[in-house]
Amino acid sequence: METKRPTTPAAEEILGGYFPVLDHGFVALVDYMGGDEDIERAARVSYGYGTRKTSQTRGLIRYLRRHHHTTPSEMVDLKFHCAMPMFVARQWIRHRTSSVNEYSGRYSLMPLLFYKPDLEHFGLQSSDNQQGRAPEHAPAALYEKTVAHWEKVRAEASRGYRWMVEEDVARELARIDLPLSTYTQWYWKINLHNLFHFLTLRADPHAQWEIQEFARVMAGMLKRVAPLSYEAWIDYNVCAHSMSRAEMAALRRLLEADVDGIRPREGVADLDPKGLKELGLSGRELRELVDKLQSADVPDYELDLSTMRRAEDVAAELEEAVPGSVE
Amino acid sequence: METKRPTTPAAEEILGGYFPVLDHGFVALVDYMGGDEDIERAARVSYGYGTRKTSQTRGLIRYLRRHHHTTPSEMVDLKFHCAMPMFVARQWIRHRTSSVNEYSGRYSLMPLLFYKPDLEHFGLQSSDNQQGRAPEHAPAALYEKTVAHWEKVRAEASRGYRWMVEEDVARELARIDLPLSTYTQWYWKINLHNLFHFLTLRADPHAQWEIQEFARVMAGMLKRVAPLSYEAWIDYNVCAHSMSRAEMAALRRLLEADVDGIRPREGVADLDPKGLKELGLSGRELRELVDKLQSADVPDYELDLSTMRRAEDVAAELEEAVPGSVE
Amino acid sequence: METKRPTTPAAEEILGGYFPVLDHGFVALVDYMGGDEDIERAARVSYGYGTRKTSQTRGLIRYLRRHHHTTPSEMVDLKFHCAMPMFVARQWIRHRTSSVNEYSGRYSLMPLLFYKPDLEHFGLQSSDNQQGRAPEHAPAALYEKTVAHWEKVRAEASRGYRWMVEEDVARELARIDLPLSTYTQWYWKINLHNLFHFLTLRADPHAQWEIQEFARVMAGMLKRVAPLSYEAWIDYNVCAHSMSRAEMAALRRLLEADVDGIRPREGVADLDPKGLKELGLSGRELRELVDKLQSADVPDYELDLSTMRRAEDVAAELEEAVPGSVE
Amino acid sequence: METKRPTTPAAEEILGGYFPVLDHGFVALVDYMGGDEDIERAARVSYGYGTRKTSQTRGLIRYLRRHHHTTPSEMVDLKFHCAMPMFVARQWIRHRTSSVNEYSGRYSLMPLLFYKPDLEHFGLQSSDNQQGRAPEHAPAALYEKTVAHWEKVRAEASRGYRWMVEEDVARELARIDLPLSTYTQWYWKINLHNLFHFLTLRADPHAQWEIQEFARVMAGMLKRVAPLSYEAWIDYNVCAHSMSRAEMAALRRLLEADVDGIRPREGVADLDPKGLKELGLSGRELRELVDKLQSADVPDYELDLSTMRRAEDVAAELEEAVPGSVE
Repeated sequence: METKRPTTPAAEEILGGYFPVLDHGFVALVDYMGGDEDIERAARVSYGYGTRKTSQTRGLIRYLRRHHHTTPSEMVDLKFHCAMPMFVARQWIRHRTSSVNEYSGRYSLMPLLFYKPDLEHFGLQSSDNQQGRAPEHAPAALYEKTVAHWEKVRAEASRGYRWMVEEDVARELARIDLPLSTYTQWYWKINLHNLFHFLTLRADPHAQWEIQEFARVMAGMLKRVAPLSYEAWIDYNVCAHSMSRAEMAALRRLLEADVDGIRPREGVADLDPKGLKELGLSGRELRELVDKLQSADVPDYELDLSTMRRAEDVAAELEEAVPGSVE
Repeated sequence: METKRPTTPAAEEILGGYFPVLDHGFVALVDYMGGDEDIERAARVSYGYGTRKTSQTRGLIRYLRRHHHTTPSEMVDLKFHCAMPMFVARQWIRHRTSSVNEYSGRYSLMPLLFYKPDLEHFGLQSSDNQQGRAPEHAPAALYEKTVAHWEKVRAEASRGYRWMVEEDVARELARIDLPLSTYTQWYWKINLHNLFHFLTLRADPHAQWEIQEFARVMAGMLKRVAPLSYEAWIDYNVCAHSMSRAEMAALRRLLEADVDGIRPREGVADLDPKGLKELGLSGRELRELVDKLQSADVPDYELDLSTMRRAEDVAAELEEAVPGSVE
Repeated sequence: METKRPTTPAAEEILGGYFPVLDHGFVALVDYMGGDEDIERAARVSYGYGTRKTSQTRGLIRYLRRHHHTTPSEMVDLKFHCAMPMFVARQWIRHRTSSVNEYSGRYSLMPLLFYKPDLEHFGLQSSDNQQGRAPEHAPAALYEKTVAHWEKVRAEASRGYRWMVEEDVARELARIDLPLSTYTQWYWKINLHNLFHFLTLRADPHAQWEIQEFARVMAGMLKRVAPLSYEAWIDYNVCAHSMSRAEMAALRRLLEADVDGIRPREGVADLDPKGLKELGLSGRELRELVDKLQSADVPDYELDLSTMRRAEDVAAELEEAVPGSVE
Repeated sequence: METKRPTTPAAEEILGGYFPVLDHGFVALVDYMGGDEDIERAARVSYGYGTRKTSQTRGLIRYLRRHHHTTPSEMVDLKFHCAMPMFVARQWIRHRTSSVNEYSGRYSLMPLLFYKPDLEHFGLQSSDNQQGRAPEHAPAALYEKTVAHWEKVRAEASRGYRWMVEEDVARELARIDLPLSTYTQWYWKINLHNLFHFLTLRADPHAQWEIQEFARVMAGMLKRVAPLSYEAWIDYNVCAHSMSRAEMAALRRLLEADVDGIRPREGVADLDPKGLKELGLSGRELRELVDKLQSADVPDYELDLSTMRRAEDVAAELEEAVPGSVE
């Protein structure tokens, strides 16, 4: 269709395409409003006409992000259709500044699709992170036993759900013993400012791996809607680190900077844990500083277009998983 | 403790007391800020001293609510500690303008407590409401079979969770096959304006019965924090109805009002479905109007203080339900 | 440009056109996302393909609005560029659930344009509404004296601003004595749910007349973006009234309704102020009920396309009003 | 009064006291809910009893802030009564996640009090910051001429306002030519998370100096409500800096860190502007990095209790400034 609205060809290319995530989930970009130039336009409160060079737009967008001038990025919106396990949905929904319409288990029959982790991502409790999993996977034998358990619980939960639906038990009750691994789906709309916040937290290695998978696909989508903003986000958020008062004191002790560049201060002594403690850094914070100074890869959330599926095909699969096949 | 802050004796009486909801849930009011007089103070942007008569405060509060001047009621906050089944938590969290800290299944072990509906509230799918349950309960035999199913699924899910925890599987994975009936808990803070919105929707008969039970207890708590606001909410929201353009046209056709009162228009003809349709009322809207004109009970969400429990006792029960008993 | 996004021809027709409001203000719709069908799509969490009849979409949208299912209407966004006097901007900004980028008086030079009410809307303090103006205008002689006062203050404030800017006084200080009638401008993005809330309050006769003027133009714009939602809003919000518990008791006393229609109860006595008081209605509420039962016009916020201006022309006017002509 | 709610003695000491800001403004803490321990309680979703050592609470609060776990800090609320010039109010209100009730110029008569900057803070346009003022004050002669201008405009605006009020012109119109320097006032409630965000932006040297003055007093108040959170905010926000991807690359090139401490890499070469550019740092970003590495004072927003005034005295002053003296 013809439109006078701002349009982004790279976003149009994937609009309405469904990208698989995990075993039965997906993310589709179903609509978007605005792009990098609209952020500039809002920041300048400018009239709709006239043209600017991309290099000027890039400079402004990087300046805005570096200095936390986030309101112009609220002027861009992305709308997604997503399917995810309920335990992922429960983490996701904590991001309040967004709009959601979820598939209703009170009104509709649930597709009986469950998330089964694969061996590669089946880890033991992490020893150094109290809420995550170890980076390496658990023994295959343990995994096999767990899969057997999952299959048993899910078969039993599915059987019960089907039977209750046949007996005409209220759907809002029939579903209460479905497991948290059951897939749900929703429409989700969020502006770019809040999407960046979501992605910064949820594409982070400390987030549960399953929600990271969704975040990575959405990051690839926003890269197509607003590439300059995406690049600024990578540089000033994803790959940036906050240095605390004590850490800044350590850096100032060790380094000097001026218009000619930055260099170690002459004759400066090393800062050992005792010296760092005097500056206010705890032992735990020293370990965190060491981590920050490890070299780190720059992530690239480019979408793999070969995985993109048609809405009809995805819909057919979910409908087949609904008890009684045809609703 | 001594405080110069506004204090409400009726709220202090229940502060920190745990009120049971459903079979293993609870609501406790753990803190509050302000009351009816603070709403008036904010509406008047007045200095902190001076006294007003209760009748003046009541008149203002009723005026504000009747005319949708809701911002002063944002000046009162209530903070709750609650435990509820996860399918209830998922409905609850849709109310975004509030603050939440939920018990983390990634970090902590889940108490293995599940919600089991009793026969009285175990209904078939409603025939006239596409998303609810019938008012009368289902046959006892169907209920018994369902209970057997629940017990089987829950025993299996619990066994698997306990075993995975012993095998040191990451908690964030061990919990993914717990059923939606599993209890979770959270701290929840909300201001009075948004609490009224929540309660209007969730104490309503169209909400799932289980969340209504929570809403009714919270309504009883706010009645103690801000009794005049509570009364105005009952009169102008809970027991009020919106009359559409077409319904107003019908009322104007049938009734006349002036300073001397309100009465049927002389010689007015009845409005039959055809006449109502001409005014814009669909058949479905006529049925809704008939419902509105049925006489309705005025609810009273007074708390039953005899059910109030001590924090220690409630905590002990939940801790006992955690695998391995002592964390 | 070509787009796969949902497009509304009636909205495209006015996109980027500037509609004058008051003497120097304007509203332009600069972007939109979604329309009536996207509300349905979100409510059904449906896949992107397939077609529905308009009559079905209309029925669903009216049902959703009548029953306060407002979340699907959050899925539509409108973005405006507006200019308004600062006293209007201060009322407008109270609507928090929106995104704003305002022209900065710290960074940029202010156009010296001031709002001058015309005689027709220059009223005395209302005698029955403590915060509004009387419906009829004030004497012309009083108006003339006021105009003279305005001109004097504005000339002096403008002279001072120009002089300070020439003296290179910081702009953030030079502007502090500009009057509240000075025009500012902003980009403003809001979703349909919150826009309806804004318009319901600000197109209402109790709002200050000047902000009503803006609300009416925006209502005309949304009528083009989502006509079925607009119609439902008129029927279930703008022309609807809430009937309190006591008012419902009065209606139930006087009327009966069933599937055959609605009619006065046989042999029912009139309700005089005493009887109404027994039902809980105060004297003030009786007057409010009388008002509600007066017949009322149905507003039509259709835009007058003949007033639409080009961005370039509007921009030129504002730029001319900036001190030093060329920035 | 007696309360079972958490109470903070240092906050009680100033509760209801009015702290002057600028020439006629003020901030008073009129209520608060919770403190540091309630943040811990919410983070742990713990029952109300039991005691923790302050050192444990401090460690947790610092950990939460360092790692951006901000939701527990939403559990603390502060309520203020403030008076400020309207141009300050317009910056302040941009912080949306808060509750506001402002004195109404439609309903009430405005006190005719205007903000007059003193010479010390009367600066020219900054040469290196496009939206601020130069650090040193403008020439005294320019200031004197400006004061004369202000006095003239304000006298004329006041005369007009008084006259219109006497003529019974609608208040909502009489006030439209009051200058932006006119004082308004409001009740403002915000949770600690959002207050930190507000203060980080508004106590920052890039904010307009006048709003910084308000932010500093509010920072002193929150230091009394939640001292451990305040300390963590100073260390991890106020005195912290974000290091971008390119800056981190520079730091990694120059420094190495391990459990034994942090030190310059052996034999490392200085990074000159060309080298920094290769790492992705623009010339402007190098200047920003130099600024970050300058040593900086740690601010202490301790309140000066000797300035605290009684509500009655402040109220009397404002009432005297209302036209017609007694409302």
